[in-house]
Amino acid sequence: MIIVLKPNYTEQQLQHIFEKLEEMGFRHELSKGVKRTLIGVIGEEDRLRNAPLRAIAGVEDVMSVLKPFKLASREFQEHDSVFDLGHGVKVGGGSLMMIAGPCAIEGEDILLEIAQAVQAAGANVLRGGAFKPRTSPYSYQGMGEEGLKILRNVGDELGMPVVTEVMDPRQVALVDRYSDIIQIGARNMQNFNLLAEVGQTNRPVLLKRGMSATVQDLLMSAEYILANGNKQVILCERGIRSFDNSTRNLLDLAIVPNVKGLSHLPIIVDPSHATGRPDLIPSMALAAVAAGADGVHIEVHNCPEKAMSDGPQALLPNQYAELFAQMKKLATLLNRQIPTTQPPKAAPVPVAAR
Amino acid sequence: MIIVLKPNYTEQQLQHIFEKLEEMGFRHELSKGVKRTLIGVIGEEDRLRNAPLRAIAGVEDVMSVLKPFKLASREFQEHDSVFDLGHGVKVGGGSLMMIAGPCAIEGEDILLEIAQAVQAAGANVLRGGAFKPRTSPYSYQGMGEEGLKILRNVGDELGMPVVTEVMDPRQVALVDRYSDIIQIGARNMQNFNLLAEVGQTNRPVLLKRGMSATVQDLLMSAEYILANGNKQVILCERGIRSFDNSTRNLLDLAIVPNVKGLSHLPIIVDPSHATGRPDLIPSMALAAVAAGADGVHIEVHNCPEKAMSDGPQALLPNQYAELFAQMKKLATLLNRQIPTTQPPKAAPVPVAAR
Amino acid sequence: MIIVLKPNYTEQQLQHIFEKLEEMGFRHELSKGVKRTLIGVIGEEDRLRNAPLRAIAGVEDVMSVLKPFKLASREFQEHDSVFDLGHGVKVGGGSLMMIAGPCAIEGEDILLEIAQAVQAAGANVLRGGAFKPRTSPYSYQGMGEEGLKILRNVGDELGMPVVTEVMDPRQVALVDRYSDIIQIGARNMQNFNLLAEVGQTNRPVLLKRGMSATVQDLLMSAEYILANGNKQVILCERGIRSFDNSTRNLLDLAIVPNVKGLSHLPIIVDPSHATGRPDLIPSMALAAVAAGADGVHIEVHNCPEKAMSDGPQALLPNQYAELFAQMKKLATLLNRQIPTTQPPKAAPVPVAAR
Amino acid sequence: MIIVLKPNYTEQQLQHIFEKLEEMGFRHELSKGVKRTLIGVIGEEDRLRNAPLRAIAGVEDVMSVLKPFKLASREFQEHDSVFDLGHGVKVGGGSLMMIAGPCAIEGEDILLEIAQAVQAAGANVLRGGAFKPRTSPYSYQGMGEEGLKILRNVGDELGMPVVTEVMDPRQVALVDRYSDIIQIGARNMQNFNLLAEVGQTNRPVLLKRGMSATVQDLLMSAEYILANGNKQVILCERGIRSFDNSTRNLLDLAIVPNVKGLSHLPIIVDPSHATGRPDLIPSMALAAVAAGADGVHIEVHNCPEKAMSDGPQALLPNQYAELFAQMKKLATLLNRQIPTTQPPKAAPVPVAAR
Repeated sequence: MIIVLKPNYTEQQLQHIFEKLEEMGFRHELSKGVKRTLIGVIGEEDRLRNAPLRAIAGVEDVMSVLKPFKLASREFQEHDSVFDLGHGVKVGGGSLMMIAGPCAIEGEDILLEIAQAVQAAGANVLRGGAFKPRTSPYSYQGMGEEGLKILRNVGDELGMPVVTEVMDPRQVALVDRYSDIIQIGARNMQNFNLLAEVGQTNRPVLLKRGMSATVQDLLMSAEYILANGNKQVILCERGIRSFDNSTRNLLDLAIVPNVKGLSHLPIIVDPSHATGRPDLIPSMALAAVAAGADGVHIEVHNCPEKAMSDGPQALLPNQYAELFAQMKKLATLLNRQIPTTQPPKAAPVPVAAR
Repeated sequence: MIIVLKPNYTEQQLQHIFEKLEEMGFRHELSKGVKRTLIGVIGEEDRLRNAPLRAIAGVEDVMSVLKPFKLASREFQEHDSVFDLGHGVKVGGGSLMMIAGPCAIEGEDILLEIAQAVQAAGANVLRGGAFKPRTSPYSYQGMGEEGLKILRNVGDELGMPVVTEVMDPRQVALVDRYSDIIQIGARNMQNFNLLAEVGQTNRPVLLKRGMSATVQDLLMSAEYILANGNKQVILCERGIRSFDNSTRNLLDLAIVPNVKGLSHLPIIVDPSHATGRPDLIPSMALAAVAAGADGVHIEVHNCPEKAMSDGPQALLPNQYAELFAQMKKLATLLNRQIPTTQPPKAAPVPVAAR
Repeated sequence: MIIVLKPNYTEQQLQHIFEKLEEMGFRHELSKGVKRTLIGVIGEEDRLRNAPLRAIAGVEDVMSVLKPFKLASREFQEHDSVFDLGHGVKVGGGSLMMIAGPCAIEGEDILLEIAQAVQAAGANVLRGGAFKPRTSPYSYQGMGEEGLKILRNVGDELGMPVVTEVMDPRQVALVDRYSDIIQIGARNMQNFNLLAEVGQTNRPVLLKRGMSATVQDLLMSAEYILANGNKQVILCERGIRSFDNSTRNLLDLAIVPNVKGLSHLPIIVDPSHATGRPDLIPSMALAAVAAGADGVHIEVHNCPEKAMSDGPQALLPNQYAELFAQMKKLATLLNRQIPTTQPPKAAPVPVAAR
Repeated sequence: MIIVLKPNYTEQQLQHIFEKLEEMGFRHELSKGVKRTLIGVIGEEDRLRNAPLRAIAGVEDVMSVLKPFKLASREFQEHDSVFDLGHGVKVGGGSLMMIAGPCAIEGEDILLEIAQAVQAAGANVLRGGAFKPRTSPYSYQGMGEEGLKILRNVGDELGMPVVTEVMDPRQVALVDRYSDIIQIGARNMQNFNLLAEVGQTNRPVLLKRGMSATVQDLLMSAEYILANGNKQVILCERGIRSFDNSTRNLLDLAIVPNVKGLSHLPIIVDPSHATGRPDLIPSMALAAVAAGADGVHIEVHNCPEKAMSDGPQALLPNQYAELFAQMKKLATLLNRQIPTTQPPKAAPVPVAAR
């Protein structure tokens, strides 16, 4: 940590700063430049960070030289983390997690139909929301536990791991009972009590980036989960707030290589929520694979006109299949693998015939 | 709601849209312009908003003509809401709520000392955090229930209403037991389950604007609380994310008159968290009063160098007293009142003499 | 300047860095911390800033400890700059510059009528655009030199200094001939050749902040003008880009005290362009005065319905008069002066009687 | 255009609005909804856009249903524009323009050496700045005309088209004399006089997106050039301002498919200026190709440590060669072509041997 002194600091202030630093147990080194005098402060950076040095008279600025996350950092673990998601699917270290499914779970038949279609296309994780974070209290809020059961059944029937969102610390045990992966949505990225709660499960957590979170904020939220004992955190870029409202959010693909430099955790991309526009999703999905993402998350619905949530941004199953084929070619070119899944024994009975 | 058709829509698509609208029970009116054809859709706007019209072929855009919040709207209630905060303090309708106190509660003596100083200066609500939302799991997280007790004691001793933050739906009953006003922090503004939970108490709720929330997002979060039965919501601007990191956040004062046009709810301003810089706080506090805010929230600490949280951004008690005198003059000039508080019977024994 | 080394830097890289620094003539000091090693680099900060130190192997980060502007800095000149604008009007050091007038000059009669109204209300500088920066090539682009003549005539007739925008280095001499103050618009804040050109005139320059300019960017653009010899730069906040489109731009009032700490230059506020909404302008104008601004810039038109440019955001003359009375009370309370102007000899003949 | 009336509009206001619309020659249609009354206004959208309808009493909102750009729109020209850049290089319609070179031209030998390296790697357009827009007046401002001559010579010697930036309308004729493509930098994207000036040349113009420009702003700036007669505009995404300062700007790749839907103009991507970080450039370059960009712009320098401008963000020639090979594979997979260039007759004499 470096303290920059004000140009007109007094000797008395300097002595006061030295006393404070010594009181807190930090070593210090003075460095007089042409125009500014600096103090290098040596000690445990975390304790330093929490010390309110900037409030001391004579101090102009305090600059950190270390990142505040540890367990999430590439320095803590040099090799890529690889997590087992169940049913033979892995993420990280060159294995891609391809999530697809409807925004909300609306019923077993419709979910199975969509799930069969995305599995046939190549998707290896099924998504579906049972608890929906909606900006309006008057919007559809999801099926709750009944939806979780449907998701579990369909996942089992097809042999696909499933992911669903949890919004409340009181729901964590429930969601943990039904889902292979627990999702924390963008709006709850800094719901620290919820992070601590999922940090006490053994489930891989899909942590979506908040709409105004920096890369450091995202990694600090991952750190909450890791520090609570759960080592399986998968990050997800899903767009941030920006000034151009021609897309729903602004997809920040540079966070993919940025995270890969700073952290060993896998990071995937969700172009559906980021753009909110089906006409832009395929290009952004391909770009995500090219950027080195560890997976792509796409909303698919067999009848977007009738979807109870976020219908307009969903791809149709055939659009997804076409996109998947291109993503797969790209992944192969870049030496990455996409694990496949299949129904445990026989093919399930098609919905139409049930 | 207005549907804008694509320039090359087909008659068949138009008929399909009409059928869909009729199926959903909406009336429609076609309007052919020079370059674009529009359909005016008539019906209950909420049901319209949830209908995925944009997913229908031939549709280019869907434009809403109504705001999605109701109970929070000026149209629902024309006059300003006024809430009683206890100990004779009111907010709204020309009465200002002047919150001051430390970021975190650190002990009874220190809180009492700060509280006496800010009350003497004129503050009429005491703040202090017992549960602290910290971006790092390694930072000080607050005293919990012990802190709540201290806050309640000091508030009672001085006859001041108190406000403190709740972060978890499981803590709402606890905080409700000790605090006059419940605060929802910026990071939880879209923690919808927490909003629903405080919506079931009878406490005034201080709802802080999220760092990437639009004015509509803020009012929709207020709507969650209102729709759950609690009519007492006080909004708080505390800065949003922007590109210039010379201040911690960007204070958006235009939201004050903007909210006043759209809603009957009071709105206060927190320049401490917005700027993070004591040198900018006084100007921004005065500007907030001039802009028509229903109150100002300032962090005050008697020793920022030793504060366990956010010390560098706190004002000293004498700086606060000087600022308060100016805010009061401004409020008087603008015909607004600042309710005062005082210890129930005798003056409390000063900490020094205890 | 401080160089932060990568955690795994080699001794060879360190020697290479030392050689490079010595080659460039900089002294250096090594400081080994618990987790990071730093090099303090001592020398002329400007030359350091231009040296591509970050490109050297082993370097993780380079942190500057000095601001890059000089002539604009408070350190260069401690007291507030005060500029004479003509006709007895001053700005800076407690004197407020109150600009009012239409967006575009549309004719002599209409300009005179508006000017008489705003002068009667108390405005002391008249504005009007002759060259209009319009996002569309098909929009009205202004009257050009004819407009400049009208502006000059009306200013002379009423004894008010006038301000108008220049958009092209080739127009600077022309605008300099007619106008008391030269305005650089937000979109040209980093048009460095235009800045250099107005830097060679003797006219006070009103420099509007660009929509994505940091406070440092703004002061660097002022530095261009100062470094070219013109010491009279007045800064103007007029809103920046943000994610909430309920206002045209986001007014950043904290830049007022922020600039006042960093620089001796006056800074005024333009709530008309910032909000684009007449219902928000009065509150924001009052907030600007309370925040310590050296002036307020308001668009006024006697018939916004007919204005050829930005009509919807203009106040009517009577709205302006009412607002001015409040701003004046506030300024008086805060011990600031508003210079007044008056027609040189007799009152001009009212337009109606001409 | 649609006018939304205030809920409490009066019959008199409605009649006034009708009169105004008829006066301006627009037809209108009234549509009464459950909660809001609308007026559909029919007429030439450009004239409508410039009419200050929002200033009329009783009007709450005015919504446009048409985009304000014409010549740049996909509706005006359905097929992709393809431009000839000289030396057999084309951009658009599946042909990629691969720009590489140093930030600033620093001398003939060094430019030739870099140019030979990037041409050998596969680059087909050479870049180099002779006029440099620098935020500081004290930074290196470029070699001017001497630099232009060097660029021309090296381009001729190698048979590569060249691109360089123009900053001032007075330099347009000069730059036009030496360069195959004229670049407008991000800071001048809304320098409308400069746009008009390059609109009168016959050179392809590389128009970089401003740091706070929406996709519509960018297309409106292109429209200025097109409306002045020059039909050859190539757009370039180079990052916008955002709140996370871990990268220099935020690369917005979704603008690529977004532009392709709205316009027939080609759009390329510059990951060097967008990220400012060599470690992120390769991933973002690959993502740009995958997103469908019509080219990639990369800064390359053979000694970033010594570069006079933006050295730290340049790739080394061998890093560029490696990246180019990957981009080429990706382009081939996606059925796009990269035109190649070669020295007119014999290989030029290597610098080392001169």
